Amino acid sequence: MRLAVIGAGAVGSSVVELAADYGHSVTAFADSGSAVVDAAGIDTDAALERKRTDGAVGSVDPSEALSADYDALVEATPTTLGDAQPGFGHVEAALERDRHVVLANKGPVAERYADIRELERESAGRVLFEATVGGAMPVLSTIADFDPRHISAVRGVLNGTANFILSRMATEGLDYEHVLAEAQDLGVAEADPTFDVDGTDAALKGVIVANVLADDGTEYTLTDADVEGIQEITGSALELAREDGRTVRLVAEVVEGSVRVGPRLVPENAPLAVSGTRNIAQLETEHAGQLNISGRGAGGPETASAVLADVGRLE
Amino acid sequence: MRLAVIGAGAVGSSVVELAADYGHSVTAFADSGSAVVDAAGIDTDAALERKRTDGAVGSVDPSEALSADYDALVEATPTTLGDAQPGFGHVEAALERDRHVVLANKGPVAERYADIRELERESAGRVLFEATVGGAMPVLSTIADFDPRHISAVRGVLNGTANFILSRMATEGLDYEHVLAEAQDLGVAEADPTFDVDGTDAALKGVIVANVLADDGTEYTLTDADVEGIQEITGSALELAREDGRTVRLVAEVVEGSVRVGPRLVPENAPLAVSGTRNIAQLETEHAGQLNISGRGAGGPETASAVLADVGRLE
Repeated sequence: MRLAVIGAGAVGSSVVELAADYGHSVTAFADSGSAVVDAAGIDTDAALERKRTDGAVGSVDPSEALSADYDALVEATPTTLGDAQPGFGHVEAALERDRHVVLANKGPVAERYADIRELERESAGRVLFEATVGGAMPVLSTIADFDPRHISAVRGVLNGTANFILSRMATEGLDYEHVLAEAQDLGVAEADPTFDVDGTDAALKGVIVANVLADDGTEYTLTDADVEGIQEITGSALELAREDGRTVRLVAEVVEGSVRVGPRLVPENAPLAVSGTRNIAQLETEHAGQLNISGRGAGGPETASAVLADVGRLE
Repeated sequence: MRLAVIGAGAVGSSVVELAADYGHSVTAFADSGSAVVDAAGIDTDAALERKRTDGAVGSVDPSEALSADYDALVEATPTTLGDAQPGFGHVEAALERDRHVVLANKGPVAERYADIRELERESAGRVLFEATVGGAMPVLSTIADFDPRHISAVRGVLNGTANFILSRMATEGLDYEHVLAEAQDLGVAEADPTFDVDGTDAALKGVIVANVLADDGTEYTLTDADVEGIQEITGSALELAREDGRTVRLVAEVVEGSVRVGPRLVPENAPLAVSGTRNIAQLETEHAGQLNISGRGAGGPETASAVLADVGRLE
């Protein structure tokens, strides 16, 4: 397939870097200020090198990527809330041209799911978004395989930064502020970690799952989620949990139309007690019991793998 | 889709029972001695009731199921080795009629993979077999999503009976023969548990994975696998492992064209140390690290879920 990749952060850049390995070409690649377009396939190494050295992937206006020749648009700009722009506009532009869309950006499917589905109905293009929930883990495709009607609940640890912090606090007996600073030094936490530690990121993933599970057309957005973060968890609370054979994890839970995210006590040896930056999703199925999927929930190549799996499904 | 279900054991019967729930109809259903065929859709409740009370699903010759009107044949007869008959012949008959095939029977894809793929190339029908590896767990579809070329190894605990026995031996300090008898009483182990405890069943699953991963056309069969069972594991060996924080699991490993199955020492809190009848598969991916999938690896409705997920993929 010919891909137009919008967004040149870790995920977009990894998609551009790996596309050929999966049998696809990149005909357009844009960051927020520039683009490079070539219907015969751009020179991906040169574009990534320009991004590293000059800070710009190309020399034409970014809007030219949207009007380029491509089969699928990969939307990998940062997640935004509310109107989910500019990501939503990119999805709209592609669908109006009857092109497919693969999202790594959570905004459009967390905040404007009904709008996206309506645009998709009027288009010959399809919208897939495996990468938005659990990075490399095949959560949404497994829900689709089992049929959302036969899944009663999904819960999981869906934010690697928060999990890294809770894991380190529990094993090292350190306080929140100390471990957060360490995580920032290691690049595990961003300079502004708000959405990771206050539960927003996990809640957006829960909302996306709720939208996929809703078979009555109900639309969920972040405002429907009940969200609590990990900022108030103390080292002594973790120590108390540990004496009882348990630990604390930031758990997202989607059940019967409700989305809840918050710190939960879980047994230390339970599947939910993944450590470090790993994520886990648990699907409660009607006919096949509980299914657990765990893996890397974030990272450039990891998330790009999920994007490219979606691209493969569109062929 | 219209399904012809061949085989009326736990899996075939569950597929017939659940088909309507997933939006499909059953136009033919056969056991080894009889069949019921109706192009408008058989009465599934009546057929299952006849099987329970009379031991026969219908009153016509089983071969009539193969020549019935259907879109996909579900092959759920018992796994056989060598020529993989009669399952192989059923697959052949469907593909020659340009119909799809969904296998729950491991024989044809473990023992005659190249023949199956050649028949598929000459047919408008496709062959899917998610249910043959890990029951309800989406192992093969995840391998397909990541692309077999980007997966370097697959290992897992793929036999629930052997795992139940090892788990019970380790936690209760009981000997093999005692726990095997208990497993038979519980229906977890069959009257003849040979293939489960000697590693053959896990090896067949490993061989199927090896066939899927081989991108150079190499064909694997059971004779290519290096197989050791759990019959010689003693309670004292498990006790020694436990003192060292470890336990023993029957692990199947597919790496670089080799298939090996045998008892392995694993840390007690490692993902591979699933307990009871649960299974786990670990995929080592090139771009997304390790991915773990765990769930119920056997059982009628569980395996039928995987069959029906395959049917959904064919639509």
